Amino acid sequence: MTRTVLESASKTVIIGFDEPFCVIGERINPTGRKKLAAELEAGDFATVRRDALEQVACGAMVLDVNAGVVYNSNPDPNITEPPLMRQMIQLVQDLVDVPLCIDSSVPGALKAGLESASGRPLVNSVTGEEERLETVLPLIAKYNVPVVAISNDDTGISEDPDIRFAVARKIVRRAADFGIPAHDIVVDPLVMPVGAMATAGRQVFALVRRLREELGVNTTCGASNISFGLPNRHGINAAFLPMAVGAGMTSAIMNPVRLAEMEAIRAANMLMNHDANGGEWIRFARVAEAARAGTPFAEAASAAATGTTGGRSGRRRSRA
Amino acid sequence: MTRTVLESASKTVIIGFDEPFCVIGERINPTGRKKLAAELEAGDFATVRRDALEQVACGAMVLDVNAGVVYNSNPDPNITEPPLMRQMIQLVQDLVDVPLCIDSSVPGALKAGLESASGRPLVNSVTGEEERLETVLPLIAKYNVPVVAISNDDTGISEDPDIRFAVARKIVRRAADFGIPAHDIVVDPLVMPVGAMATAGRQVFALVRRLREELGVNTTCGASNISFGLPNRHGINAAFLPMAVGAGMTSAIMNPVRLAEMEAIRAANMLMNHDANGGEWIRFARVAEAARAGTPFAEAASAAATGTTGGRSGRRRSRA
Repeated sequence: MTRTVLESASKTVIIGFDEPFCVIGERINPTGRKKLAAELEAGDFATVRRDALEQVACGAMVLDVNAGVVYNSNPDPNITEPPLMRQMIQLVQDLVDVPLCIDSSVPGALKAGLESASGRPLVNSVTGEEERLETVLPLIAKYNVPVVAISNDDTGISEDPDIRFAVARKIVRRAADFGIPAHDIVVDPLVMPVGAMATAGRQVFALVRRLREELGVNTTCGASNISFGLPNRHGINAAFLPMAVGAGMTSAIMNPVRLAEMEAIRAANMLMNHDANGGEWIRFARVAEAARAGTPFAEAASAAATGTTGGRSGRRRSRA
Repeated sequence: MTRTVLESASKTVIIGFDEPFCVIGERINPTGRKKLAAELEAGDFATVRRDALEQVACGAMVLDVNAGVVYNSNPDPNITEPPLMRQMIQLVQDLVDVPLCIDSSVPGALKAGLESASGRPLVNSVTGEEERLETVLPLIAKYNVPVVAISNDDTGISEDPDIRFAVARKIVRRAADFGIPAHDIVVDPLVMPVGAMATAGRQVFALVRRLREELGVNTTCGASNISFGLPNRHGINAAFLPMAVGAGMTSAIMNPVRLAEMEAIRAANMLMNHDANGGEWIRFARVAEAARAGTPFAEAASAAATGTTGGRSGRRRSRA
């Protein structure tokens, strides 16, 4: 049974075939968040702090940290990202005890992250692109950490799932040349929007099964891509995640501060027999009830985590 | 590709491997509904009427009709059920145009249902019990209709999924002796409550795959059994259904007047590429929005079906 071991200073999280689904919180990332980018350039880490605490309270087991800010004062990420990555990682691991996922396309930022993160972080990511393989895999080998492998290469992202599988296999083989075992590679088979490509869901489910059975690797994805462009996106996401779990997917990089998606994952864990005696489900049901009665999900989850009752959790839940 | 063809007087519904999931509305059933039972004994069909209209508006593609009332005036169902079944079927098929599912353990009531239903109804059910096989299969053959086959036999319901599979195979073989093809048998592998049996979900997913691959049959289940005894049952049901769809289940007998479950099924249809261009999802998203804004789901669905806007659909949706 494949197990990818992640560690913070004090906590171990396993991504694995026989483990609860691993939720990797995606929020600490200035890409597409102009306000956060401006805050980070100004040295204001209030949003990072809130995102770290909220995501963990809502059930994130790992936090992704991305420092990809394009500074107005200095547009070279090779200069700006490494020190910011170091600062953000220090801050986040002082606040919460979950393992981190160091997320950057800048080699210097990955290195800075690896130097500053405690324990055994996940690195996000390597691709099948030659330059990327040659830059990232030596770092992964040197620090003995697991890595997310994204199934695109120098020819781009293929719409053909067989090609995406072949790219994943190539990365696993190249990693082996560096002494990196398959159980330290978490493949992202790339999720296409089902609104644009009608076969996107079936493709991913079939790919996840093959990656698991033929390569023996754990898998992840940017889950919300599946619903891009559609109305009522949470409804699509909340069905996609259990279906992906059923197909064998073992983690996702996603926003955990969303009731519908987290409820779907908790239920899927129970249905896969990855929630002994339903303890997690029963605890979560109380949070869901408070959230449906009007308390914001993050607030209800934080209250449950700290043992307080939350502001409005006494209200009756309305049933749709 | 297996296709089970159901018909009303004017409408054909296919249960099939390459079809949208078939929702069989379970509401028209006095079992455990004392008020409905009393109404039926008194000749009052108002609830049956409302249940028929609401279920179809909410997305039921087939309606189960069960006349299993224990009359206070006459406790013998062999006497009371057949005429009531006839009356209820006549009433329902005058109101709505979907195919029916004739649901009874009383042979005379099945016969009365088969005589009065238009088109090609589904019969619910035969089991692996000898007496039941010998009584029901000749009726199925005579009327050339499809049947739900429940995987229990004279020894009861086994907790061992291999035994439940063997019972299903026995029913398929015995049906073949009567000239009934496998594609007219819809197997219910029996869903256990996951709160009582932690492996219940995995059992069903594995069984559905085997039934489909080895016996080539369509499948159904009483979906809400999975969450029996747990808090926040809709959350478990709404993850179970997409996972069952992903495993290959093709129908369920369920309450369609539930937003969470119907949303999960619509999303699963889209993710399985069974919703061309997402037309059904986009229509449903409007209903979901109105329901989340406060309009009861059945009302919002009815309004959408008839082209009116619904009472309170203008309110802002609250996001949990």
